[in-house]
Amino acid sequence: MTSTAIRSGIAALREAYRRGDLRVADVAERAATAEAPDGVWISRVEPGALRRRAAELQGKEHLPLYGIPFAVKDNIDVAGMPTTAACPAFAYPAARTAPVVERLLEAGAMLVGKTNLDQFATGLTGTRSPYGAVQSVYGGGLVAGGSSSGSAVAVAAGLVAFALGTDTAGSGRVPAAMNGIVGLKPTRGLLSTLGVVPACRSLDCVSVFALDVADAAAVLGAAAGPQDGDPWSRTGSFKSQEAATVRLGLARPDTLDFEGDRGQAERYVAAGVALSRITADATAVDLGPLLEAGALLYEGPWVAERLAGLEDFLREHAEDVLPLTLGILRSGGSFAATDAFRAQHRLRELRAATARLFERIDVLALPTVPTTYTIDEIAAEPLRRNAILGRYTQFANLLDLAVLTVPNGHTPDGRPASLSLIGPAFAEPTLLALGAALLGEAHAVHLGKTQDVELAVVG
Amino acid sequence: MTSTAIRSGIAALREAYRRGDLRVADVAERAATAEAPDGVWISRVEPGALRRRAAELQGKEHLPLYGIPFAVKDNIDVAGMPTTAACPAFAYPAARTAPVVERLLEAGAMLVGKTNLDQFATGLTGTRSPYGAVQSVYGGGLVAGGSSSGSAVAVAAGLVAFALGTDTAGSGRVPAAMNGIVGLKPTRGLLSTLGVVPACRSLDCVSVFALDVADAAAVLGAAAGPQDGDPWSRTGSFKSQEAATVRLGLARPDTLDFEGDRGQAERYVAAGVALSRITADATAVDLGPLLEAGALLYEGPWVAERLAGLEDFLREHAEDVLPLTLGILRSGGSFAATDAFRAQHRLRELRAATARLFERIDVLALPTVPTTYTIDEIAAEPLRRNAILGRYTQFANLLDLAVLTVPNGHTPDGRPASLSLIGPAFAEPTLLALGAALLGEAHAVHLGKTQDVELAVVG
Repeated sequence: MTSTAIRSGIAALREAYRRGDLRVADVAERAATAEAPDGVWISRVEPGALRRRAAELQGKEHLPLYGIPFAVKDNIDVAGMPTTAACPAFAYPAARTAPVVERLLEAGAMLVGKTNLDQFATGLTGTRSPYGAVQSVYGGGLVAGGSSSGSAVAVAAGLVAFALGTDTAGSGRVPAAMNGIVGLKPTRGLLSTLGVVPACRSLDCVSVFALDVADAAAVLGAAAGPQDGDPWSRTGSFKSQEAATVRLGLARPDTLDFEGDRGQAERYVAAGVALSRITADATAVDLGPLLEAGALLYEGPWVAERLAGLEDFLREHAEDVLPLTLGILRSGGSFAATDAFRAQHRLRELRAATARLFERIDVLALPTVPTTYTIDEIAAEPLRRNAILGRYTQFANLLDLAVLTVPNGHTPDGRPASLSLIGPAFAEPTLLALGAALLGEAHAVHLGKTQDVELAVVG
Repeated sequence: MTSTAIRSGIAALREAYRRGDLRVADVAERAATAEAPDGVWISRVEPGALRRRAAELQGKEHLPLYGIPFAVKDNIDVAGMPTTAACPAFAYPAARTAPVVERLLEAGAMLVGKTNLDQFATGLTGTRSPYGAVQSVYGGGLVAGGSSSGSAVAVAAGLVAFALGTDTAGSGRVPAAMNGIVGLKPTRGLLSTLGVVPACRSLDCVSVFALDVADAAAVLGAAAGPQDGDPWSRTGSFKSQEAATVRLGLARPDTLDFEGDRGQAERYVAAGVALSRITADATAVDLGPLLEAGALLYEGPWVAERLAGLEDFLREHAEDVLPLTLGILRSGGSFAATDAFRAQHRLRELRAATARLFERIDVLALPTVPTTYTIDEIAAEPLRRNAILGRYTQFANLLDLAVLTVPNGHTPDGRPASLSLIGPAFAEPTLLALGAALLGEAHAVHLGKTQDVELAVVG
């Protein structure tokens, strides 16, 4: 975090532009020159290109993301820049910009750079990259979380107002938790994954990092929608409820495990109390079926889906891949097609159980991560602790859920806590409304409308 | 076909009951004693049990399927009877009746027996069963088609008024084609597969054989609906159009292959002409993506889904399975999980192409089978000719389509021809309306209502 960082959300920037306190060219200049924490960027937009973009935006104040600086994870294509997926040997120059990024640009946003990630978006730690392990903005050696480490830190450090990540098992939520910001993992297919390097193609989501809930909603509104040529694109009817009507689910305590982290456990209880005050009622939920689905992803044949897209590359370039990542990917080769079908059949049963759960409740609130780890702690037990970080995130994509991750204060020793608000597919409006109410954001959140929340510009 | 057979559809039987021309007890008696063509039944309901069922139905004339005799394929559970899946070593006494059968019984229908099938519902010929190869009611050594061979012949020979089959790749349509009757393969999940021996669990459908379209609609209305405890059960909005508003698709001739069967090709042209007179307009359709999806099922990793459910059984009982069937099932063991995921990714693209097709048209009309074969012809080339029989059926379940198969006259040499009306999921009302209009059925078809079509009782 440097004095030249932007450190403002979308609404604040728009208000500053409107008042004339700030010009897009100023923000472009700061974005081009701001010093960044180690390992955040893999590539940056050239200062000259940023200036040209600012000039191009003149007279377009009506656009919903007019002059808003943003970053994208470096597994998403931007024409004219390399896509690395954090593997230099894999890198290719992107010929076309991913449609989801194209929509943000058409909405007036200003791309600042492409961010670091756990290689091939495989990992939840933010330490698995040849471009460097990324540290949380909270310091103390805490990991940034992954795989979208750079995007989360770019937002939390004020380098951009929002960023795109991707999320297959928690990659858009764990880094939000570790950096005290908002993370939105939308319904699968709501944001197009065309032009995104696949991890598990059937589960991959493009995700949003933002400083507050209204900003996440504004980005979602600009980026979401059916996409021609994307077979994974989906449409559906949004479910929209006011917070006061929400039937809340809270984890039955005996099905929770914080790995002994009392501070995180206390914060979860506090969030439950706060949510109970603003929702209709609350029910205790057995997490068993959700945790079983998560285990299917972590220990089961979906790792073969990761391998499916990379098998040819690995045959030629095994030595160019991080040994830990290579081992994980290659383990996908040990599963038979019969294993994949049997796991999919079990998943179907777990999805049916989840559908029944969401007949009884509207939103399930869970801790985003059970605990936090430092870079050294992850290095000591890289696989086991990675799995622990994903405990309350990795089932969501398999079970076709939408999740909004919001900051939940701090532990007594100053580490960030985070809460995930989980709903069925297309529950985004309900999740955003509840998240905004919980954080005390003043105005109602509407998809597709930029908010006029009044915030001071501190950049 | 014997003089004691029933040979009447649902509407005719209901009318005969209403007039007092026929009593349920008479129909039960005939059903219990009727001689059946070779190989149709695997097990029959005892005459005493049929008499008790007739007595139990007294005073229940209001039920939509009151006193209607029916059969179920012997891979569907009926409490108190064995389920064999045409493999004696696999047979088990069913403890509970499959919910889809339960619904028909609750609607007043009268179960007569359980029918032969290609072992484990694997095959489209009707010849792969230790209970005997089943011949078409057209004679001349023609195969009955499979896998639901016995159910189709039971209806065509007048042993029952309707029957349940199952359909994964065409098992509910090819036998309808080979016996000149109506076959309905509904949208996946519309009829519960709980209590059905799985073939490919993610693709399996329970299907309906009937003498006319109105009867198929009446059975669908009684049998369909969401089912608790069935993770594959689905709900959706039905699409209902009058025939005159239907935008028809016809196969572009260069993408069709009748294996040199001119008689079948002529009947397809005739059907196209007849349909063109009663629909809004017609478009030529490239079958490429559909045929590619069919090839994925036939040559690709879905055979591993068949194996997934039977692997444990085969380990102990390989010698109790037909060698041809064993070979097919075991071939599923050669696919890796990566193959399964890659094929599913390609299928997703083909589904998207199919969705675009059904934005342009409402119903695609195709021949059900390219040609017909005799039992000897199948024995000469059992795998290749089985695949040919499935050419225009095997893509439907993978692509989430609904299909109504209707008789389409005869070839000059007296073989049956058949037409398949294909629509997207939940298009059943449109398909039934178009089928009824094509066959000249006098009254409109309404799901869930028994029709009052006037027909003479010929049983």
